[in-house]
Amino acid sequence: MIQLIKQNIVSRDLSYDITISSSIIEEKLNYYESSNLNPLYIVDENISKIYSKLLPYDKDRVYIFTANEKNKTFKELIKIEEFLSKNNALRGSTLIALGGGITGDITGFAASIFMRGIPFIQIPTTYLSMVDSSIGGKTGINFDDAKNIIGSFYQPKEVIIDINFLETLNDEEFLNGFAETIKVAAISDIDFFNLIYDNYQNIIDRDQELLLKIIEQSCVLKSNIVKEDTYETNKRMLLNFGHTLAHAIEIDSDNQITHGYAVALGMIYEMKYGVEKGYIKEEAYIKILDMLKRFNYQTEYKINNTDIFLSALLKDKKSTSKGITLVLTDENMVGKIVEKIDAELLLNIFND
Amino acid sequence: MIQLIKQNIVSRDLSYDITISSSIIEEKLNYYESSNLNPLYIVDENISKIYSKLLPYDKDRVYIFTANEKNKTFKELIKIEEFLSKNNALRGSTLIALGGGITGDITGFAASIFMRGIPFIQIPTTYLSMVDSSIGGKTGINFDDAKNIIGSFYQPKEVIIDINFLETLNDEEFLNGFAETIKVAAISDIDFFNLIYDNYQNIIDRDQELLLKIIEQSCVLKSNIVKEDTYETNKRMLLNFGHTLAHAIEIDSDNQITHGYAVALGMIYEMKYGVEKGYIKEEAYIKILDMLKRFNYQTEYKINNTDIFLSALLKDKKSTSKGITLVLTDENMVGKIVEKIDAELLLNIFND
Repeated sequence: MIQLIKQNIVSRDLSYDITISSSIIEEKLNYYESSNLNPLYIVDENISKIYSKLLPYDKDRVYIFTANEKNKTFKELIKIEEFLSKNNALRGSTLIALGGGITGDITGFAASIFMRGIPFIQIPTTYLSMVDSSIGGKTGINFDDAKNIIGSFYQPKEVIIDINFLETLNDEEFLNGFAETIKVAAISDIDFFNLIYDNYQNIIDRDQELLLKIIEQSCVLKSNIVKEDTYETNKRMLLNFGHTLAHAIEIDSDNQITHGYAVALGMIYEMKYGVEKGYIKEEAYIKILDMLKRFNYQTEYKINNTDIFLSALLKDKKSTSKGITLVLTDENMVGKIVEKIDAELLLNIFND
Repeated sequence: MIQLIKQNIVSRDLSYDITISSSIIEEKLNYYESSNLNPLYIVDENISKIYSKLLPYDKDRVYIFTANEKNKTFKELIKIEEFLSKNNALRGSTLIALGGGITGDITGFAASIFMRGIPFIQIPTTYLSMVDSSIGGKTGINFDDAKNIIGSFYQPKEVIIDINFLETLNDEEFLNGFAETIKVAAISDIDFFNLIYDNYQNIIDRDQELLLKIIEQSCVLKSNIVKEDTYETNKRMLLNFGHTLAHAIEIDSDNQITHGYAVALGMIYEMKYGVEKGYIKEEAYIKILDMLKRFNYQTEYKINNTDIFLSALLKDKKSTSKGITLVLTDENMVGKIVEKIDAELLLNIFND
């Protein structure tokens, strides 16, 4: 006798608002403090110094996090869980991440597993986290030499983007994030791609009105792609343009090349591979290369250690039974996914 | 200028099958091995000894887990993640838990956070895990003296219940699990409750046909409650009948009193509190007490350390801003949730 029971699951409402503005952070934090959200804060160390006045008086409710890839570990995660436990955080408590992508990723993950999920709010303070990591619900930590290999899909309650935080970034940090805007334009919106190309000087000069517009469009484009495929079974993979190689470059360079710069390099070498294999026209490659040169991204990379590079490539979450997967884009800025990549040829591209 | 973007999230299909039968495990495991599921196994140490022939020849794909509450930790979780990483587990790999509730809980959690979620299959080998922990998608580990305080809601791909595994259990282990069947009957199905009451001797003698029927009905009842409230915002809390006190009893007894026995004690003392406060009739309390006496459960408990007990009570996930929450049931076996429990009175109940 076999009895079969069908277990249906009703899922939660996971929609949330992304607010984009300037000079709203103080008002928002005051609101949280006066609310019944029971807020607890994970704050990037640098932000905590610059914006110390914004933080609540009660320092027990603030965890200062030294945000770097080497701290995106189980060890730090456990410390955050201890912080929550010591504060007697309950299901009604809200965890607020104030910092860049690393802070947001580990905070979101910590929130997702404490009591099987407490609410959390993303307040991204870097360009990278504003347009990319704070949207889409990917959380995570690094493990066993693989980036973000441990984590969860967990949506924030809300995302607050205040572009005033961008004042804390130097040009390199700004461009590190801007690579994701170029990426999302490159896979889905030729008009936006051209607008960026034409206005590159104003962007570098950080024209406020223009930046608000660009951040908004970046968020809308990413949001639209995520909406269609939250759990990354197909279309969302387009957002990985540049990222298959980027993760390997980050590890191979011992994180000397930061994420956005690695994505820029990744886009270039992935497109080069695409041309070599006939998947795309050279024209598409040139467009991407020209754009990145305009913003003065590094456009050449030499692999330090082939074994480390290859191992990082194979450990990537984007690897499946279909082998290594790449994203390419055509001359009309329409992205596409290519499977079963020839790893040897891909590595050789770096020696051309 | 404030730009507001609404991020909608489409959730995954989370439904799955629960198969209940006897003598199907060998066939199922052979099927997994010959499939393209890329199976990896987390196996309870005792089960691995008794059923060593069932396990794949390739021992690298089997992680032997010493299942006890003291091992339900971040440390063991990290070892399992290492096991997955060393096996180059990909998103297409399937993690199979073969063991009781502790094994299932930590395996499900490990699967839920590796690459933000790989498929996993529950093969419960104890009565407790067959009727309770393997259904409903709660995963977790213990942390900072709180049971299951770290974890996720993560649904298995399927649940395979083979009642032949029950042969490995002694009477105490069997009754440890059976408390959850009594509990689910007590909060939702008076006919089932009476059937158990009337047939107690056949149950203790483990009549196979009867057990299949009882396990099925236990699963159906739990499944129906979970279906309505997967993320435990209201109705699912009914399943916590006996559990508010049980978790504290387990910790206060240093895990000498196992989960099911603690739930039995929890039901008794929670009902006693309910009578004292006038929430339920004494008749309801007597019905529960009589049932548990029939099966020879321990029906009296003395608190060892009031501070530890109280702290465990307050750290419980069921505590909210509404204070400690209890579940009670009436004489018709209809459960109800009671909030804002008087902790002092609750502790005094143990001294009556």
